[in-house]
Order: sequence, then structure tokens, then C-alpha cells
Amino acid sequence: MKKTSFQHMPCPVAQALEVIGDSWNVLILREAYYGAKRFDDFAQALGIPTNTLARRLKELVAGGILERHPYSEKPTRYEYLLTSRARDLRPLMLVLLQWGNRYGNMDAARTMLVDSYTGEPVDLVLVDRVTGLPVSSRHRVLRQRHGSPTPHSFAFPEPEAEPG
Amino acid sequence: MKKTSFQHMPCPVAQALEVIGDSWNVLILREAYYGAKRFDDFAQALGIPTNTLARRLKELVAGGILERHPYSEKPTRYEYLLTSRARDLRPLMLVLLQWGNRYGNMDAARTMLVDSYTGEPVDLVLVDRVTGLPVSSRHRVLRQRHGSPTPHSFAFPEPEAEPG
Repeated sequence: MKKTSFQHMPCPVAQALEVIGDSWNVLILREAYYGAKRFDDFAQALGIPTNTLARRLKELVAGGILERHPYSEKPTRYEYLLTSRARDLRPLMLVLLQWGNRYGNMDAARTMLVDSYTGEPVDLVLVDRVTGLPVSSRHRVLRQRHGSPTPHSFAFPEPEAEPG
Repeated sequence: MKKTSFQHMPCPVAQALEVIGDSWNVLILREAYYGAKRFDDFAQALGIPTNTLARRLKELVAGGILERHPYSEKPTRYEYLLTSRARDLRPLMLVLLQWGNRYGNMDAARTMLVDSYTGEPVDLVLVDRVTGLPVSSRHRVLRQRHGSPTPHSFAFPEPEAEPG
């Protein structure tokens, strides 16, 4: 099944999804965060067929998420290093981590973000860096759609969904 | 191509990805945030084949992301409403939005999160709700892997990736 391209969708969410690719690529990225660099690191951690892994690594390099660098000659072997684009995707990993811990199968809850100083798990909240205010019904996502004079928008989160 | 199930992976990120499904499902969720409720709303906004859309909506209902409610009798028609699980996925949408605006095709940058009071775009940062501290190299993701006595971990973000 050929993956549909989101490349020409005028939406940054679609753009991001286009570069990230599918769920397997997110797990490859996860392993890179944990320190995987070499093909065999990823293959062992993820247990996916090598031809599939090779294709996915190529996608992530093409998307500027990973950079391929030689680490040996004769034969030339490459390792895959995180780019700054990839580091900027870590919030994606963390929000998936938090949601998965909350709603996923509880056996999975052995992975968590902790504060190294206190040892406490972190309860993540998105905040406006400028005002310091948590994202709330005060904030709205605005989008201008083709052929629509007024932007669509939604409040985030809906007041009834406010935490605590 | 049968999608591999992440259901039994002991990782909350994989668990979250399993429920969310693929990129198209994220776009369906996006439309639900914008107010789409009925099959035709989603079909029109996304332009995907109706059989594909029907299958995806069923997946999202099965995953507890959408709830199906009848809105008319004779014929019975249903609308798809966001659940609290879905509202808790909005941070996912926002981090994708921010990343896509930063790194995606610039034509896409017409969608943004704004502060309704100031009209300013929001620069999102993840903060520990308890300490109020932005996620930094002080924080670590810890995971216990099968058959590994010591947990794997990574700092988030790496110090050199610290913003500003």
C-alpha cells in the first residue's frame, strides 16, 4: 500500500507527519534517543526486517531527522545521528510517553520521564514560553483554509477538559 | 500491507502509537478538533475514500478516541465525538503543529496556536506541572527493558539542544 503524501497539504501537522512517516519511524527515533546509532543497534532493539529498517533509515535521513556518517572504512559502515530537527521532535516522544502511560496497557508503564534531582515522575504540561501560561481555553489554533475567508479555529483545551 | 501491532510492546510510546494508528488518523483527529462530527464532515475535509474513512473512524472508536452517537433516526446516522482520551491527545497535535511550522514547507505555516488575549503566536515549551521547570537536561526518560537489570535512559533535551 503506497503511503499517501501529505507534502502538499497546507497544514503544519500534515507536514510534520509527512517527514516523520509512520509509527515505526517514531520507534526508530525513540531508539536513537536512547543511544542507538548503528544499523545493528536499531535492528536488535526493534526486531524489524533489515530491508524494512534500511528503507526507514533512508526516509529519516531524507527527512533531515537522522544524519548518516561513516564510522569505519573497508568496509565503509555508517552510523545514524540525531539532527537538531530530531531533537526538536523530543516533545512528540514525551507527549506520546505521557499519553501512553495514562491510557495504554499498564504493563507498558515502566518507562517514564523523571526529574533527576527529585526522582519524581514528571507531569508534563504545555506552556507558552513567553507568558509562562499553560495552554488553556485562552489559546486557540487558527487555520486559514483555501477558499475560506475566515480562519477555522478551535480552543485548546476545551474548558471542560482543563486538568485539575 | 497489514499494520504490525505494537499492542504487546512494553513501551508507552508504542502503546500510544498503537491506539492512534497512522498519520491519517491524526488528521481525522485534527478535523474532529476543528469541529467535524459527521462522516461527511470528515470526508469533505480530508478527501479520502469513504471506505477508508469508515475503517479509520471504526479504529478510532475502538481505541476510545472517538465515540459514536446517533444523531438521526430513519435512517439512523451517527456522529463521532471526541472523548477525554482524545482531548488528552491535543498536546500531540500542538507539538506536531509547532514542529511542522518550524521545519515543514512554509506554505503550511498558516496554522498556528495563538493567545486570544494578545493575538500572539504561542511558543510552546513542556514544563513539569509540579516544579514548574521546563523539561531540560535535569530530566531523564527511564525505561526498564526485559532482561536488562539497569534501566536505559536518556536526558531530554541534550544540553546542546537547550533552547535560548
